[in-house]
Amino acid sequence: MQRQCRRLFSTSIAEPNSSKRRVIFSGIQPTGVPHLGNYLGALANWVKLQRDALPEDELLFSIVGWHAMTLPQPPKQLSDARTDILAVLLAIGIDPTRSIIFHQEHNPNHTELAWIFNCITPVGKLRRMTTWKSRLAASKNQGDDAEMDETGLNVGLFAYPVLQAADILLYNRATHVPVGDDQTQHLELSRVIADQFNRNFKAKRQLFPLPTQLSTSSKRILSLRDPTSKMSKSAPDASSRILLTDSSSQIASKIRSAVTDSISGITYDPVNRPGTANLLTILAACNDEDVNKTVSGYVGKNHGALKADVTEAVVEMLKGPRKEYERLKMDKEYLRRVAQEGADKARVKSEVTMMEVRERIGLL
Amino acid sequence: MQRQCRRLFSTSIAEPNSSKRRVIFSGIQPTGVPHLGNYLGALANWVKLQRDALPEDELLFSIVGWHAMTLPQPPKQLSDARTDILAVLLAIGIDPTRSIIFHQEHNPNHTELAWIFNCITPVGKLRRMTTWKSRLAASKNQGDDAEMDETGLNVGLFAYPVLQAADILLYNRATHVPVGDDQTQHLELSRVIADQFNRNFKAKRQLFPLPTQLSTSSKRILSLRDPTSKMSKSAPDASSRILLTDSSSQIASKIRSAVTDSISGITYDPVNRPGTANLLTILAACNDEDVNKTVSGYVGKNHGALKADVTEAVVEMLKGPRKEYERLKMDKEYLRRVAQEGADKARVKSEVTMMEVRERIGLL
Repeated sequence: MQRQCRRLFSTSIAEPNSSKRRVIFSGIQPTGVPHLGNYLGALANWVKLQRDALPEDELLFSIVGWHAMTLPQPPKQLSDARTDILAVLLAIGIDPTRSIIFHQEHNPNHTELAWIFNCITPVGKLRRMTTWKSRLAASKNQGDDAEMDETGLNVGLFAYPVLQAADILLYNRATHVPVGDDQTQHLELSRVIADQFNRNFKAKRQLFPLPTQLSTSSKRILSLRDPTSKMSKSAPDASSRILLTDSSSQIASKIRSAVTDSISGITYDPVNRPGTANLLTILAACNDEDVNKTVSGYVGKNHGALKADVTEAVVEMLKGPRKEYERLKMDKEYLRRVAQEGADKARVKSEVTMMEVRERIGLL
Repeated sequence: MQRQCRRLFSTSIAEPNSSKRRVIFSGIQPTGVPHLGNYLGALANWVKLQRDALPEDELLFSIVGWHAMTLPQPPKQLSDARTDILAVLLAIGIDPTRSIIFHQEHNPNHTELAWIFNCITPVGKLRRMTTWKSRLAASKNQGDDAEMDETGLNVGLFAYPVLQAADILLYNRATHVPVGDDQTQHLELSRVIADQFNRNFKAKRQLFPLPTQLSTSSKRILSLRDPTSKMSKSAPDASSRILLTDSSSQIASKIRSAVTDSISGITYDPVNRPGTANLLTILAACNDEDVNKTVSGYVGKNHGALKADVTEAVVEMLKGPRKEYERLKMDKEYLRRVAQEGADKARVKSEVTMMEVRERIGLL
């Protein structure tokens, strides 16, 4: 079965009874060191969200180990990845005194709420998830035909959108802003579940306001070896991705060998020149500028010049985080404490929701 | 959707590394006051198990609210039923100083382990559960055909056998003795899951010994109005069942109107005389004797004499428990304390298993 990096979601939330205060929640799976695509596509946004948040806003970032389990994970590797991701988040600038950073599996309220949601979610809703349908298609293609229908896929893969709805609704009870088109349908499911709960368990106040989608700018970074597909943790060719922990020379080597095209000159044309466009997207993102501005600097220049600039920009951007990551990795006691304190805060916050959920359903 | 009393299971367990010490675990859903069928079919066995247990044996009895949620439950009714069942268990003789009595939903380890098991359980295993298939058949028959496939049934109904496996394996890590034929397939699933976990997450010692089935004598009590089906909480005619809390006159009235047959004399013939056989079964169970001995006392007698004896025996058997139930119902503080102490003990015990589970999968 193919392993896939499934970043979860980023939600920005206004709490009920307060149109101003926001709660921002995002999740990432502990399945190895994030790559440039994860960083520019999601993690850099987390840092921006934290930077731009108002003092009264609350931020939560979760490393979602229970989601990672839906695909087979060698335990030692999973265990290491959890610590690595925590160190990465801190290294890129997530501040544990400002945001709540925690491991999902340190807060049992997630699986409790997921079970309760299971009991109000029709099976048919999950069967229509495109993530499920593509798993199904993949298992059919791989299989030795006979038995290869959904029956071999595990229940976690089928049911994880319900756990995800629990992740979202546990802390906030009102949501917006998922990132990533692949998550739109899962957010819609969260709306359906929230609405179903509200209708089944009525009270003066609706418990769960329905999450609504907002859009944030997130960069779609492509494979350096096959620019028709996304940069991926699971692609067999390691030179197709730049890890946040890569050394300067590794970064230089990977960008040097990046697939582009044989057209002379540099233009931004994602359809016909995806490899070149991908390098321009990366450069624009590193410089935090519009790609049209970026490309305007390359009149009369060639791929060599572009690759040199991309290398320099990426090396520069990742230098600080990488150094900080190496330092943090040594400080196990600090990482342990951050995880512990984050878990404590997450539990306290989610417990407020859960007490009301339990009372409403009659299981207090 | 039909509401059904789904008694869960009774497992008698030998702990690993100890062939002598047993852990006995049983669950019951909080869906109203138990009836005579529940009592003679399951609850009376719990009391016997407790009475016959060796000093080193451990007993756990759980009121499983999370399973009840798989069918719609009015919250107030569910909440009341939880307390009622607790009072019933104590009233019939389950001793909280000897056994651990607790509400499942007070121990989040159940849903956590269920999620982990979800991730190693193939969807196909659940689709083959006969409980699921009969739900499916029922929803098809009821439906306005078009949309009436499994898609309208909730995920909880589909996935609850996995939660049940977690219930079983959480406390024991080795099991036998489920009660009730409808649970045989679920126990088999627990074996499959335990085995899958052991193979995926190997260590020196197998974490979960495979549960094996033992048989206990459990009485199958039939409806007093339709002796072709089991006595049921959900049958529309309330006179088809005797509740443990029924008064003597209610019991007398229900037995007087019990459907039998027009054959003269009393013989034990479950196929051709199910109503008469049912009364004999009840009487034999009340007297704790073999039904063949019971029937031998009715040579030359008629249904009137049998019904009078059954009434007397049932009234006598339930008198003490009913009085104790009425008393306990008044003592909310005591019930609250029993539930609290039970939950604390259950959590401590299950945490030993969970710490090892989390370590093995890499999510400690």
